[in-house]
Amino acid sequence: MDNKKIWKAGLIVIGDEILSGRTQDKNVAALAKWLNVQGIQLAEVRIVPDIIEHIAEAVNEVRATTDYLFTTGGIGPTHDDITVDAVAAAIGADVIVHPRARAMLEGYYGDKGGLTEARLRMARVPDGGELIENRMSGAPGIRHGNIFIMAGIPAIAAQMMDALTGQLEGGDPVISETIGCWTAESEVADILGAVENAHPECQIGSYPFFREGRVGANFVVRSTDAAQLATCVAALTAALADQGQQVTAGGI
Amino acid sequence: MDNKKIWKAGLIVIGDEILSGRTQDKNVAALAKWLNVQGIQLAEVRIVPDIIEHIAEAVNEVRATTDYLFTTGGIGPTHDDITVDAVAAAIGADVIVHPRARAMLEGYYGDKGGLTEARLRMARVPDGGELIENRMSGAPGIRHGNIFIMAGIPAIAAQMMDALTGQLEGGDPVISETIGCWTAESEVADILGAVENAHPECQIGSYPFFREGRVGANFVVRSTDAAQLATCVAALTAALADQGQQVTAGGI
Repeated sequence: MDNKKIWKAGLIVIGDEILSGRTQDKNVAALAKWLNVQGIQLAEVRIVPDIIEHIAEAVNEVRATTDYLFTTGGIGPTHDDITVDAVAAAIGADVIVHPRARAMLEGYYGDKGGLTEARLRMARVPDGGELIENRMSGAPGIRHGNIFIMAGIPAIAAQMMDALTGQLEGGDPVISETIGCWTAESEVADILGAVENAHPECQIGSYPFFREGRVGANFVVRSTDAAQLATCVAALTAALADQGQQVTAGGI
Repeated sequence: MDNKKIWKAGLIVIGDEILSGRTQDKNVAALAKWLNVQGIQLAEVRIVPDIIEHIAEAVNEVRATTDYLFTTGGIGPTHDDITVDAVAAAIGADVIVHPRARAMLEGYYGDKGGLTEARLRMARVPDGGELIENRMSGAPGIRHGNIFIMAGIPAIAAQMMDALTGQLEGGDPVISETIGCWTAESEVADILGAVENAHPECQIGSYPFFREGRVGANFVVRSTDAAQLATCVAALTAALADQGQQVTAGGI
């Protein structure tokens, strides 16, 4: 393991619709999974309201402790779409109309009523920003250094992640393996702790559930090293079996 | 409107399983909706990893700006369940075994192998904490002043919210009404901004979607005042109709 740096990302989810409970966020899980494949760890998420000062403060606090900073939400044409202004305020940049974004929007809206002032809002970027394109809407995301401004609509955010795949420097991807038992996690808590301590390159997560009137738990072992992962999963499986547990590979 | 104080809550979601993308969080939306009914606004959410110092820092930063602080996750019996320790560290309290929690767990596990050391972890509270009971598992949540430590499993967290219903001081509940149009939100962005500005007691959120190959948007008007809400919805409906939009009451 030469590369020991752990690359970290933060995510600011912007939107009153998430904080009001109206909309179920899907971007945290999607970005987390995508980051795993890039070898980047999602280290913190903050969900903040549509208030410029709050967004800007969160951007600056989270990017101070992470390598990459993502935002989702607030890049549409309406009055509550203020992410670009907030990020620009956070980094001390002016907001400008990006010529290529303007051209893209003109193309997209040419036969749909043209480029109104509201639509032109979607061409605004913090000065120095580059575009992250997507095929679903005319409105691009924005990359400004290590800051990535993404759409809130999950299908569009996913296209922006696609466009960024392989573009970000990261470490070894995190890989994981799951095993499960029909047992209360409290029955096996000591085993989990002992096996994790014996395998410092691995983390073990324990995820209890109630299903079919019975209690069970899945145990997810994560590592960036495939050999260590296999050793740890084998040790955990053996320790659980020694205790008389039926272990299901792949999880329940 | 005598009561102008806006009561605010923060939520710390604790768990590597959320940040890894393995588990889709459900507690943010559920708590947000429950808080709306209590007359409390969810003002900020942070999702943090299973690291005591990170949790404690988030607890102290968020509770400094909110009236109530909730946590979800990390109160089970395993090595990665460290929420009680983190909250205790944040507020400078010792961790003690709560006698009633211990008795509840003894009752629950009496015929299931008894109260092991791992299970006894679930009776630990920051000194001064009271219990938030639930019927689904033997493990209670914990209230310590304005801090509420809740389960991560959504069904159990929901029972803890039930137990707290009506217990927290709040303002007028937020009420909302939705209308929708089959239109690009960029077509109506100016209308939304103008109507919101004319109704300072209301907020209007715009939520675009792609469905059945067409674009549409729902507009959610929120207020704590039913009369103002009705006036604002009527004004928005009239302005959209004036522009030639078909408005669907209740949203699309």
